[in-house]
Amino acid sequence: MLMSQQQSERTRVKRIPKRGHYDREMIDAILDEGFICHVGFVADGHPFVIPTGYARVGDELYIHGSAASRMLRELSKGVEVCVTVTLIDGLVLARSAFHHSMNYRSVVILGTAELVTEADEKYKALEALTEHFVPGRWNDVRWPTELELKATSVLKLPITEASAKIRTGDPVDDDDDYSMNVWAGVIPLKLTPGEPIPDAKLAEGISPPEHVSKYSR
Amino acid sequence: MLMSQQQSERTRVKRIPKRGHYDREMIDAILDEGFICHVGFVADGHPFVIPTGYARVGDELYIHGSAASRMLRELSKGVEVCVTVTLIDGLVLARSAFHHSMNYRSVVILGTAELVTEADEKYKALEALTEHFVPGRWNDVRWPTELELKATSVLKLPITEASAKIRTGDPVDDDDDYSMNVWAGVIPLKLTPGEPIPDAKLAEGISPPEHVSKYSR
Repeated sequence: MLMSQQQSERTRVKRIPKRGHYDREMIDAILDEGFICHVGFVADGHPFVIPTGYARVGDELYIHGSAASRMLRELSKGVEVCVTVTLIDGLVLARSAFHHSMNYRSVVILGTAELVTEADEKYKALEALTEHFVPGRWNDVRWPTELELKATSVLKLPITEASAKIRTGDPVDDDDDYSMNVWAGVIPLKLTPGEPIPDAKLAEGISPPEHVSKYSR
Repeated sequence: MLMSQQQSERTRVKRIPKRGHYDREMIDAILDEGFICHVGFVADGHPFVIPTGYARVGDELYIHGSAASRMLRELSKGVEVCVTVTLIDGLVLARSAFHHSMNYRSVVILGTAELVTEADEKYKALEALTEHFVPGRWNDVRWPTELELKATSVLKLPITEASAKIRTGDPVDDDDDYSMNVWAGVIPLKLTPGEPIPDAKLAEGISPPEHVSKYSR
C-alpha cells in the first residue's frame, strides 16, 4: 500500500527544502532501484555504519545477515537504526569550485528494526532478498535448509519515518560566472554490469541463464 | 606517511577474520578510489547516516558542506563519527540462496571529527576535495571567495582507528551443491561514466577539457 509519508522533524530536509521528498512512490522507487544500504546504529555509545543488502516488501524494509554478526546481534536488541540508500547519478561540474555538486537520489529511514521470528515471513523475506539482488534467481537455486535458516537473522524496519533527497540537472552558478571560459555540465555515472564470470568450479555445459546474461540495474 | 594500523577491538573484523585488513596501504587505496562516504553520528540520541563527498590528504580524511547543514553543525561539536566507504565490485551468485554474496571493498573509520579553522589548511582541503572529485578540475575553475569560505565548513577525521573489509572471487558453495545444474559465478559491477552533458547555459565554443572527456574512476 502506498501512503503519504509523515514528514517528521527528524527526516525533514532542512537546508535545501526543494531537494526533499516525502511521498512513498518516490521513496519506494529509490529503494527498489538500489540494493546496498548503509545501516547506522549505536553500540556501546559509539556510532557504527555498515553496508549490507536489503529488500523492500510493501511497507517493510528487510535486511539479513549471519546471526553471529555484530550488527545483527546489536540490531536484534531492538535499538534505533538509520538506514540510508544512496544512488549516485552524476558529477556536477560548475564554473566555481564552490558550486560543484553531485546528482543523486537518497533515502533515509529512521526507526527500530525488529527481528523476524515467524518462519513463513522469514522465508518470504529471504526470497525477496534474493530476488531483489538478482531478479529471477530464487527459482534456480537451492533454497535454505532448517540449519541455514537458524544461522541467518532477518530484521525488518517499517518504512514510516522516511524521506528522499534528490538533486538532478545542471550546475547552478553565480550570475557573474556564466561568462567564464570554463566547461560546465554533468558527467553521468551508472553502476554497470560487466560480462558474467563463471565460477572456476562450474561444471561444463552450464551456460548463464537469462537472469544473468541479461542482468541490468 | 603510511603506517601500520592499530587493530582496535572496535574495528576488528570479527566474524570472517580473513576478510579484515588493517594495513594503511590497503585502506588508502580504497579511500582514494571511492568518492562518496556515509557518515554516521548520533544527534539527540538517534543515529543518522548521511552520504557526502570526501578526500584523503595523508593521514586525514576531509569532508565538507554548508556551515548551515545539520550534519556539519552536529559534527562541529566534536562528536564521535563512523565514516564508511563502500566499493561494490560484483554480485556473487552461488548454487544455494544461502551462499549468495557480494564482492566489495569497504573501509570503516571511527573517531572524532574536528572543525578545520586554520585558513590555509581549509583552502588546501577544498582543493583536495575538488581534485578528488574530478582530478584536474581545480586549476580550471574559479576558486573560493572569502564569503564562500565562510559559508563552508570543513572537518577532518584522523585515519587512525580504521579497518578494511574485502571480499573477492568466486562463490563458495557447500560440497554437495557443486554437482547441481545451476550457473554460478560473479556478475562484475562498476560505476561507469557516461558521455558528458554540457550545461544548457554553456557558452558556444567551449569544449570539454581532458579531465572531463577522459574522466574515469
